[in-house]
Amino acid sequence: MSAYGDTFSIRTSGKGTYDVTSEVAGVVEASGIVTGTATVMVQHTSCSLVIYENADPSAREDLHQFFEHLVPEDLPFYVHTYEGPDDTTSHLRMALTRTSEVIPVIKGHLQLGTWQGVYLFEHRAAPHTRKLAVSVVGG
Amino acid sequence: MSAYGDTFSIRTSGKGTYDVTSEVAGVVEASGIVTGTATVMVQHTSCSLVIYENADPSAREDLHQFFEHLVPEDLPFYVHTYEGPDDTTSHLRMALTRTSEVIPVIKGHLQLGTWQGVYLFEHRAAPHTRKLAVSVVGG
Amino acid sequence: MSAYGDTFSIRTSGKGTYDVTSEVAGVVEASGIVTGTATVMVQHTSCSLVIYENADPSAREDLHQFFEHLVPEDLPFYVHTYEGPDDTTSHLRMALTRTSEVIPVIKGHLQLGTWQGVYLFEHRAAPHTRKLAVSVVGG
Repeated sequence: MSAYGDTFSIRTSGKGTYDVTSEVAGVVEASGIVTGTATVMVQHTSCSLVIYENADPSAREDLHQFFEHLVPEDLPFYVHTYEGPDDTTSHLRMALTRTSEVIPVIKGHLQLGTWQGVYLFEHRAAPHTRKLAVSVVGG
Repeated sequence: MSAYGDTFSIRTSGKGTYDVTSEVAGVVEASGIVTGTATVMVQHTSCSLVIYENADPSAREDLHQFFEHLVPEDLPFYVHTYEGPDDTTSHLRMALTRTSEVIPVIKGHLQLGTWQGVYLFEHRAAPHTRKLAVSVVGG
Repeated sequence: MSAYGDTFSIRTSGKGTYDVTSEVAGVVEASGIVTGTATVMVQHTSCSLVIYENADPSAREDLHQFFEHLVPEDLPFYVHTYEGPDDTTSHLRMALTRTSEVIPVIKGHLQLGTWQGVYLFEHRAAPHTRKLAVSVVGG
């Protein structure tokens, strides 16, 4: 039995989804763990994680548009908008998706389905460097 | 300390919620782990997981209706609809709920509250076979 | 390698967010685990967890207002309202946020970012005692 932890960063260039599956799989491989659990977390409150369809980019286009529709930038009751119209909405969109994704590891592999990718969901319009922490626990 | 992993499948017959609590508890029991963490993940992007009220079926009826309301099948900007009106909405509803549920194990039992059940939330109208992966890590 | 589990309760006084970060960090410290994963879960279906911005209270005010907007108490199709207008909405708001939060532990510390706090999100108007379970697994 062992536990392994690492961090990595990615650079985002505006709102949208960024595939981090290979980075997470790389940490699992480095851990040498065959059976257990991998956890990846974004260390921010204005971006989030989501496991999403990885085959057809139009699926993610709909995701992006849907969140503009579901959490619009101009709701009249917002007060937390010091950093612009994408300030409070970034936090709300994060709360509606996930800060961590947790994936079983069996036979040395992340148990993602064929069409599942792990994406960082950037909610801010300006470019950002995003830090992620990964832990793998098992044997 | 040990780690244990297993997979199982369930058959769905259209949109709705399907109780998988006993299947997850069965993997925990098979693991023999007394203190630790259990993770269950659906290996698909058109269904999801949610821990929900397990006493009164009307609670889940409202859940089903609410998601038809929150993520309607006819929003004008959808482009990912090759497989029908429940194609892109299945992914969106998955993103708004959870792909994995992670439950502490203490004294050999999943630490679910009295009214908490683990449900697979099927978002596709057609029947599907859904695969789930479970890992249990602890001692 | 070891695994550690504990439970704690907090008292809520109506809808809103309640910081439980220090309680979770306390369990991690008590576990003595340096590298691994911490899981915190609410054992209820009418409150939830969310990692949210911890610097400016106005961010959480917008969160509270947004959920009144997104999941209003008066949708015409609700049937699960025996306990009042905040009955079914509590479950729906729980499903849209999280029952568990899972946080990597590296060098003995929860890997929360600078502005991330762990909050219990109470969806019921009446005061409640809420039970949480925490497990920490690692070495």
